Amino acid sequence: MNACILAVGSEMLTPFRVDTNSLVITERLNTIGFDVRLKAVVADHVDELVRVLEGALTWADVIVVTGGLGPTEDDITRDAVARVLKLPVDVDEGIVDRIRERFARRGLTMPENNRRQGMVPRGAIVLDNPNGTAPGLWLERDRTAIVLLPGPPREMVPMFEAVVRDRLAPKSDGGGLFRRVLKITGRTESDVDAAVGPVYTTWTSRPIPISTTILAMLGQIELHLTAQAGSRADADAALDASVGELQTVLGAAIYSTDGRLLEAVVGEMLRDRKMTIAVAESCSGGLLASRLTDVPGSSDYVERAIVCYSNRSKVELVDVPESLIATHGAVSEPVAQAMAEGVRSRAGTTVGVGITGLAGPGGGSPEKPVGTVAIAVTAGDYLRVRTFQFFGGREMVKFQSTQAAMNMLRLILLKADAPFWPAR
Amino acid sequence: MNACILAVGSEMLTPFRVDTNSLVITERLNTIGFDVRLKAVVADHVDELVRVLEGALTWADVIVVTGGLGPTEDDITRDAVARVLKLPVDVDEGIVDRIRERFARRGLTMPENNRRQGMVPRGAIVLDNPNGTAPGLWLERDRTAIVLLPGPPREMVPMFEAVVRDRLAPKSDGGGLFRRVLKITGRTESDVDAAVGPVYTTWTSRPIPISTTILAMLGQIELHLTAQAGSRADADAALDASVGELQTVLGAAIYSTDGRLLEAVVGEMLRDRKMTIAVAESCSGGLLASRLTDVPGSSDYVERAIVCYSNRSKVELVDVPESLIATHGAVSEPVAQAMAEGVRSRAGTTVGVGITGLAGPGGGSPEKPVGTVAIAVTAGDYLRVRTFQFFGGREMVKFQSTQAAMNMLRLILLKADAPFWPAR
Repeated sequence: MNACILAVGSEMLTPFRVDTNSLVITERLNTIGFDVRLKAVVADHVDELVRVLEGALTWADVIVVTGGLGPTEDDITRDAVARVLKLPVDVDEGIVDRIRERFARRGLTMPENNRRQGMVPRGAIVLDNPNGTAPGLWLERDRTAIVLLPGPPREMVPMFEAVVRDRLAPKSDGGGLFRRVLKITGRTESDVDAAVGPVYTTWTSRPIPISTTILAMLGQIELHLTAQAGSRADADAALDASVGELQTVLGAAIYSTDGRLLEAVVGEMLRDRKMTIAVAESCSGGLLASRLTDVPGSSDYVERAIVCYSNRSKVELVDVPESLIATHGAVSEPVAQAMAEGVRSRAGTTVGVGITGLAGPGGGSPEKPVGTVAIAVTAGDYLRVRTFQFFGGREMVKFQSTQAAMNMLRLILLKADAPFWPAR
Repeated sequence: MNACILAVGSEMLTPFRVDTNSLVITERLNTIGFDVRLKAVVADHVDELVRVLEGALTWADVIVVTGGLGPTEDDITRDAVARVLKLPVDVDEGIVDRIRERFARRGLTMPENNRRQGMVPRGAIVLDNPNGTAPGLWLERDRTAIVLLPGPPREMVPMFEAVVRDRLAPKSDGGGLFRRVLKITGRTESDVDAAVGPVYTTWTSRPIPISTTILAMLGQIELHLTAQAGSRADADAALDASVGELQTVLGAAIYSTDGRLLEAVVGEMLRDRKMTIAVAESCSGGLLASRLTDVPGSSDYVERAIVCYSNRSKVELVDVPESLIATHGAVSEPVAQAMAEGVRSRAGTTVGVGITGLAGPGGGSPEKPVGTVAIAVTAGDYLRVRTFQFFGGREMVKFQSTQAAMNMLRLILLKADAPFWPAR
């Protein structure tokens, strides 16, 4: 079953906005067996939308249109659809009454132009919008269902959920695409591809075929597995087996198979072990603390973080000996180690982390170029210290530093003998 | 002049990816007078792409297609364009030789399927790709220019720049769209709209018309001004005048007219005044420090940050009296003030910030619901302490806390009598 997703609105055609509604819609459509073949953003010009709708009607089983249902002249979706389907448009006074009541509840009088939102191409089914004034519309032409929904996500998403459950799922032939995302760190993309390629290439010819995509991202790699199956139970069984095969090959490099972020995985490990953590950050500037504390309940294990940006603060706050900075420089393994041990000892936690490096753009030298970061992690009796060479601008170096530090901690806690970070 | 932007590739039609190439292309096209009327992402199905191209040829002055130029069977862009324009396809041995050399330089033999990348619809102009194997192609049909470019941004962007300069700009009628973004904090959207509406609605009928869009974002509002003008100089003069009118109305609520982020604006103010800053963060968990240190050169003014997540760390690290926590609770104005003063006094900086609140999801009570955040800022002889009620989940509360804290500091340094944050 083939789907087309259209977003209507000239404001979505500026350099500042991306259409994210289509991602939510794609996910839901995939799950009930619709494959998205085309998505488009169309300006507020009725001729344009008519042309695109006419094209999609020749092949799509469902067309989902978001936006263009507001009360102004710019809101052209209703008109365009009526023109394409050659339907007259009536004003549904029931809709207008409901909009008028909505305004009245807030002590306001409905502006006359909101009557436009009551316009319905004849024969359309009206879809209730609990979170806004614009109702949705459902129309059918031959084998194609046409769903019109408002643009704001908080109005669109609940309405789409209802449409999927009540109207679209029964139209589907039952099969669906089901996905699993594996997150990996500490390996390069080509390294991962070489390891998993011989495995996943056999999956496409199985009874429940699984296709695999490798996505390289900053500081991590994602493997997206997509199973085509008649039911979620069948897909889950096939995906579980595939994930198991990948875990055999990649081992501890896979940190998450359920979409969780590294900070959530590490946080749960700390909680399970009843451990607490204190971190001392220089070049990462608080980003490690911020990521750790993004996780709900992290106050149970995050005791403190010290952003010791100046040399003086490294000495005063986490007891780095001045002589160590003088001898080795602030960006060095001995200083990272002293930061980790100092912050842990002062905080009385089980885990200490020290990060010191050059985030750039200034401050690099031939011996220590921008991107050089020394990281120390101490947990119980374990201590690991490494120097990394990260790439990219300031924010990229900061992010990679926090990713590497959390992965070092994760592998120590797992006692896994795996590389902390890809070699260059 | 009307433009259409197409991205080819089924991998762009999953729930995980958004097309960002089109944003860069839109910005460049707007500047030389092309208005983007449609953009679409098309699956790797030649029939689909043919249909969309045929539609766009009826109205577009330029069609930019990215992706689908790789060496595999899935790469359908060349075939689809040749079919639409009814052109035979020849293999350009010069291109194939250059690709072979590229492989040879890395010690590799060119796989045979890379010959596909040498296929050229007859009459097309080949666009050199310095950063990859897939060359671009330029074709014309009647009044429409068709530009085919590879998908990876680091290959696409430099090639598109060259096309814009050498081939597209001369086709434009000279006019262009030029934009200015104003960033505002401390006011609500409706508040801003009420203040600026009477001003900007007069601009559309001026000799150089300016259209205005208001975008509400988390913790800030953006005003996008778009001038339609014959030259950048004319547009800049008109935009400067408009920005001035808005500044008269909105005053200190506008923190940036050149795209700079709040952390960069505040950082420059600190640098200009030769001030230094130390922050004590509880619920924001290091995010304020991380945002401040995202700015290059911030080590000149950021002395330290203390993430005192536990009560013990508030007492030990920034000298919050235990009795204060016992009396008022950790989330209270007296504790925020003690944090700001304590961290400043220990660090010996001119500015101190204290943030303590409930980021959720747990920990709320009827008196202090989730989202309650007390913030204190002290700078020189000034002290301001406020309690805010932010909305949304944990990361949203964290972000709004840092936004409000930086805005308090900014307004103190400006000595501006403006609200720190919108009233509910």
